[in-house]
Parts: sequence; C-alpha cells; structure tokens
Amino acid sequence: MAENIQEPRTLTRLQQFSKVLQSGTLQQLQLMLNGLFAAEIAHLLESLPREKREFVWELVEPDLQGDVLLDVNDDIREHLIRQMETSELVAASEGLEVDDLADFIQDLPDTVMQLVLQSMGSQDRHRLESILSYPEDTAGGLMNTDTITVRPNNTIDVVLRYLRRSRGKIPAMTDNLYVVDRDNKYLGQVPLTDLLTREPSMSIGELMNTEHPGISADMPDNDVATMFEHRELVSAPVINENNELLGRITIDDVIDVIREDAEHSLMSMAGLSEEDDMFAPVITSTRRRSIWLGTNLITALLASWVIGQFGATIEKLVALAILMPIVASMGGVAGSQTLTLVIRAMALGQIDTSNAGRLIVKELSVGILNGLVWALIISLVTILWFDDVQLGFIIGAAIIVNLVTGALAGATVPLFLKKVGADPALGGGVVLTTITDVVGFLSFLGLAALFLI
Amino acid sequence: MAENIQEPRTLTRLQQFSKVLQSGTLQQLQLMLNGLFAAEIAHLLESLPREKREFVWELVEPDLQGDVLLDVNDDIREHLIRQMETSELVAASEGLEVDDLADFIQDLPDTVMQLVLQSMGSQDRHRLESILSYPEDTAGGLMNTDTITVRPNNTIDVVLRYLRRSRGKIPAMTDNLYVVDRDNKYLGQVPLTDLLTREPSMSIGELMNTEHPGISADMPDNDVATMFEHRELVSAPVINENNELLGRITIDDVIDVIREDAEHSLMSMAGLSEEDDMFAPVITSTRRRSIWLGTNLITALLASWVIGQFGATIEKLVALAILMPIVASMGGVAGSQTLTLVIRAMALGQIDTSNAGRLIVKELSVGILNGLVWALIISLVTILWFDDVQLGFIIGAAIIVNLVTGALAGATVPLFLKKVGADPALGGGVVLTTITDVVGFLSFLGLAALFLI
Repeated sequence: MAENIQEPRTLTRLQQFSKVLQSGTLQQLQLMLNGLFAAEIAHLLESLPREKREFVWELVEPDLQGDVLLDVNDDIREHLIRQMETSELVAASEGLEVDDLADFIQDLPDTVMQLVLQSMGSQDRHRLESILSYPEDTAGGLMNTDTITVRPNNTIDVVLRYLRRSRGKIPAMTDNLYVVDRDNKYLGQVPLTDLLTREPSMSIGELMNTEHPGISADMPDNDVATMFEHRELVSAPVINENNELLGRITIDDVIDVIREDAEHSLMSMAGLSEEDDMFAPVITSTRRRSIWLGTNLITALLASWVIGQFGATIEKLVALAILMPIVASMGGVAGSQTLTLVIRAMALGQIDTSNAGRLIVKELSVGILNGLVWALIISLVTILWFDDVQLGFIIGAAIIVNLVTGALAGATVPLFLKKVGADPALGGGVVLTTITDVVGFLSFLGLAALFLI
Repeated sequence: MAENIQEPRTLTRLQQFSKVLQSGTLQQLQLMLNGLFAAEIAHLLESLPREKREFVWELVEPDLQGDVLLDVNDDIREHLIRQMETSELVAASEGLEVDDLADFIQDLPDTVMQLVLQSMGSQDRHRLESILSYPEDTAGGLMNTDTITVRPNNTIDVVLRYLRRSRGKIPAMTDNLYVVDRDNKYLGQVPLTDLLTREPSMSIGELMNTEHPGISADMPDNDVATMFEHRELVSAPVINENNELLGRITIDDVIDVIREDAEHSLMSMAGLSEEDDMFAPVITSTRRRSIWLGTNLITALLASWVIGQFGATIEKLVALAILMPIVASMGGVAGSQTLTLVIRAMALGQIDTSNAGRLIVKELSVGILNGLVWALIISLVTILWFDDVQLGFIIGAAIIVNLVTGALAGATVPLFLKKVGADPALGGGVVLTTITDVVGFLSFLGLAALFLI
C-alpha cells in the first residue's frame, strides 16, 4: 500500500542492506532483494566490494539478471558475465527487450551469442539486426522497435477497439502512437491522451501531430538527449533516410545518456573512466591509474628540466626556489577554471566558431585583470617576506604572464583538442598544466636570471 | 511534415542563428526564433555574448518569455529580469504552470510578485503557496499540482466518459491517474494504457497499481531523481505525512535535477558555479574567480613556507629545487584521482559507513603500489640525471610517502567535509592539494636535510 517511504534514500538502503548482509539470514536478504527494481540492484552491486557483490549476485532472480547486467557499469558487467554459466547467460538474455539485448549481446562470449540468436524468433532477430546496424552512440543504437503504428484514415474508434483487443500489451513509456502510410513512411504522431479525450469519430489524419519530425537514425546520442531535454519528450520516433519508421527512443534510455555524458567529463578530467568499478582489484586500478601518473611524470620532468636550466641562478638566490611553486600553481588554477568552463560549454554544445572568439577574448581579459590583482598582492607579500623590491617586481611580472597564459591555454586547448579529434576532457588538464608549469618557471626564473643575478 | 532533420545539432543551430543575427533580416531572425521551443531559446541565449543576448531577448514572444526565463541559468535570469518592465514580467509569469511559477516568483521584484499574486485565481494561489511551503530542493518544491484523480469505486467506463468531457485538457506527461479516497488519501495509480486496453466494466479499485507508493514531500530532490532513474518513471505522486495527495513530479523536472547535480560536481571542483553566465562581465567573472585564486594562494604560501624552512639545504644542493615539484605534483595527481572517484560515488549515493572503510583500504593499497612503482622509476631517472644514488633513494622515499598521503587524503577528505556539512566537490581539491604539496615538499626536503647535507 502507498505509504510515506524513506527507502529511496540509497545511502540508507545500502546501510540496511549491508547490515542484513553481515548479520541477517539468507531469507531476509532474498526478501530485501526481491523488493528492488533491476536498476536498484545494479546500484547496490556497484556499491559493494567484490566478494560481497559476487555473493549477492548469486541471489538475484534469474529473470532480473539480464536487466541488472545492463544497468551496472561495463567493468562489473564483464566481471559478472565471466562468472556465469552459458545456460544462465542465455536465460538472462531471453528476458530482455530487443534494444537492451542489442547493448548486451556484444559483451557475451561467442558461443552464448549464437545460442541467444538461435533461441529468438525471426522477427525479433530481424529487429535486433536492424538496431545492431547502427553505432551504439546514435539514435539507431538507442532505439527500441516496439512501436504501435496506425494509419491516417483510421478513426479514433477503430484504434480504440484495436487497442482494447491487445489487452494491456502496450509497451512501457508509450505516450504516442505513430502514424505511418502503407509504405511505413512516418507521417506524425497521436498522443494517447487525445484518444481518450477527442471525438471517437475523428480520423487519425485530422488529429495527428506533425510538429515533431522523426529523429534520423544516425543522429548522435547526445544530440538526441538535448532534443528530449529541450522539447520535454517521453518518446520519439526514429526514421531512416527514406523517412521509414524504424523504432522509437524512450526517455529512460535518454537519461542514461545524459548521466554518462556528464560523468564522462568529471571522470576524464582526472584520467578516470565512468565505466570503471570502484572496487576493482588493486592491481587493475593501479595499472589504470599508472597511465595518468606516467603522463604527469613526463610533464613534471619537463618542468624540472626548465628549472634545471636556472640551477646557477637558484644557487645564488634561494628565494627563487621558495617562491617558484606559487607562480606555477596560480597559473594552473586560473587556467583550470577557464578549461572547466569551456569543457562544460562544449559538452552542452554551447561553443562553436560563432562565439569561441568572443569567449577567448573574455577569458583573456579576466586573466589579465586577475593577473594584475594577484601580481600586486604577491609582489607585496614577497617584498615583505624577503625584503627585496626587485624580487617583488619580478614575481609580479611572472604572475601576470602565467595567469594570462593559463587563461589563453584554458580557452584554446580544449577547442584545439576537439579539432584534432581528441577528448578535451581527458587531455585538457595535462596539456594545460604542462603549459602553466613550464611558462610559470620559465618566466619567473628567466626574469630573475636577466634582471637579478 | 516529418522529415530527416539535422536541426537538433545545437552547434549547427547556434552557427545558423549567429549567421542570421550577423547578416540576416529581422524577419528571418524572428521566423527562426518562432520555430524553437522555450528551452531551445534558453540554450541559445546562454551561448550568446551579452549584447546579442539582450537584442535577441527583445524578439522572444511574450508568452514564451516566462518559460525561457525558467530555463536559463540563474545568472542570466537575474540579468534579464532586471531589464524587463513590470508589465512584461507580469505577462511572462501568467503563462507559467504553477510549479514553474514557484521557481520563478522568488526571483521577481516585490512589486511584481504582488501583482502576479493578485492576478491569480484563489485556487492557483493556494496551490502556489502549497508548493512554496517546501524547500526548492525537495519533492514538494519540485512538484506540480495538476493531477487527475479518480475514486476506487469508479469503473473504467465512468472515467473514460469523464475524460472525454475534458476535451484534451489532460496535462502533459500524464501517464497515470491517481486513485484517492474521499479524504484525498493516496491509494494507488492507474496507467492510461490500462484505461485503453482493459474491460470498461472493471473498477479502478480492481485495476489500480499499488506497487509505487507516493513520494514524501520532504524527500531530497536527488533522491527523487535516483528513484525516477531506477524505476523508469514518467511521473510520480507526492504525498504529505498524512498520505494526502499533494501533486506530482514529472520526468522533465527530474532531468533538470540530474543535469544540475552532475554539473555541480564538475564546476565546483574548479571553484565555479553551474549557474554562472559564461559571458558574464569581465569584472564579475574576475571577482568570482578571485575567491578561488586567493584560497589557492594561501595554500601555495603555506607550501612556500615549508620550502623556506629548508633554504639552507637547497642552497647546498640545487638539485632539490629542481626535483621537488615532481614529488608534489605526483602526490597531487594520485590524490585527485582518488578524490574524484570518491566525490562521484558520494554524489551517486554509493558510499556510506558500510563500505567507506573498504574503499579507503583499497585506495590506500593502490597508493602504496603506485608509490612503489613510481618511486622506482623516479629514483632511476634521478640517479641517471644527477649521478647521485643517495638523492635517488631520497626522492623515491618521498614519492612513496606522498602517493600514499594523496590516496589517503583523497579518500578521507571528501568524507570528512561531508560530515562537517561542507561541499566535498567545492573544498576537496584545495584541501587535498594543500596536503600533498606540504607533505611532498616536507618529506623530500626533510629527508634530504637529514641524510644528505
């Protein structure tokens, strides 16, 4: 019965579950699991350390396992699939909708894939092939084929009788029926609510909404997400280049795209993947992180080499060694602010050639102004600390140079990376830090070598 | 008519629009604007520099202005509202649904707010007050009051006749009717699709779905989002502590929550806000960024002070100054990877007391292993570069200390910040860098002072 529930506070659920896992009976555990939706089980599995996860996985009902596998991240999916018997995998696949199966089947071992394909009806197999013919990150890869279609010359009354005969077989998230002609060309859509409220004698053709054209099957999935978001859609038809209806995309799959895109930016900026298991084995995590640490080491060595060029200068004035990290880090922070702003705007599709120039000018202005402000403050601190006015002027100049460099690099590096086909979120930070470190040390130590020593 | 459209590629649209803005006629511009949905106009306005934005804003149809204002970020909303006449603001408010008006009305000047309230019917005003009585970031603040309710003793037939009389007045995103008793207590829900497919003589009570309990009005909005995501909901009923139906939440508002939460983590980690205008005036941006740069300066000065304690040591061995940034930066990078992982898991509600210990142990293990690997590599590089075996051993030891410190700080700092009520995404990076800088310089220079000089 309906009641005031606290249960979706996942933290609480995780804690409750962990408690039962630790000290409850197997029956209690199973009871708890049975009350959860597939995605909730997936979320729970992601939160559990490996050995607990494997134990809980054995308790998940076989007909839910397919959906749960779809919802966990790639890393965990592969791990669980490796542990499953062929018969279990076939059973898990059979419970899935065709669009979900399409995401899943490529992760299966070849023998299992063959078995699954054999067990499918020819219509479903044909549908699956249609989805698989599009890349995963396009509208075609995202769609399902469970559309309900009607003809423009049908009346509401006829459609209602047809639906009533189907007895509850309308697919989830169906808010519109799609209108097609004899050749399956997409014409428009009719909201279910119209069927309920308009005159039964009206024809579908009179009623249909042509405001939303079909989505082209090759549209990138993040454009699909933007479209759903902006137009507040629950589902939308997918068409091919001949305007033939192929299937439909539903909001639940779109939310996954939005979530993954947003997480991708966050995780990439630290050299991580959103598909990694939080509790991956230590060796696996260490190896993955190593790539990023190695890249950073090369950057750091380059910066050290720059410092090394001024070894003699530092020997004479050790204050330079004390102050130089300030110059590098202020440039790095200022640059990373601009970088993050640009990466987010790029992810939202809010920057292109028409406004990139303006944004660069603006960020450069902010960099100059901030450079002046912080040059003044840091100069004063330096003069007070080391009682050396010249040193104060030099660090001030270096701060201005490096904050301007940071702003310029933060704005242009991601745009450049995108242009050459690299992921701005992944590479941007490393390139930026390399630039601000090198320029920071070079400007400060270089000016000192020129004017001080 | 339906056709293969490319238009939702926002980049292309932005470019097209900018072209018309630059060289087209006013009529072309207006035609283009009129073809867009409110959220699409908002997205476009966010992408435009200020003076173009103000110009385009004047061209937006008055009855769309309210919805557009809702969709732009806070910064731009305030700016546009400041430019509008009282009468324009009242007109914009009148076009809004009650839940949207609730988000909007608090940003309006007092005089306008009074006028809007006066122009509302008493029923709508009552509804508005009901929404405003809940914080913006709870289910109550997110809900709309446009529910359609039915009684359990009604038959499908009666409900269908009732709906047909309403003639298309079913609110958008209605996928379920809510079943309530005489006292407006929530009992369950009936999918529209069931009305279309089941026997007309069935009673709502027989048909209704009680699997989804109502959402408590005080549930935090990110918990609501998780629930929608996991249970694939389009709408859900909101109830108060007496189980009385208050309204419903729809997926379009939930997507905004998901998007904002994800962007919040990304932007906060660079000390930015997701609600800032990309094209804010230079002075405003400079001031906002200054806070972060100032915080970083304090951190950097602390690190410099630590270096300063070893001035005499550096004077004797300048290689220390050359190598010390490597120790600090490797610790910072390793730490920030752990930090990002933990912040994301916290945002998803996947970490609590039941697994935090395990995660800390795992990250610590990764830190130790990576510490050993990179200590070895960096030691070798140092020995080859400076021909000094002792220096190689010392930097290796410092690398191990700092990578372990980074992992430990990355895992514990966000958990600690959350415990004391601070935003882990905002403060985490600064605290972490402070720790890895100080520990990095201290361990390297300290060990050198002890064993080398």
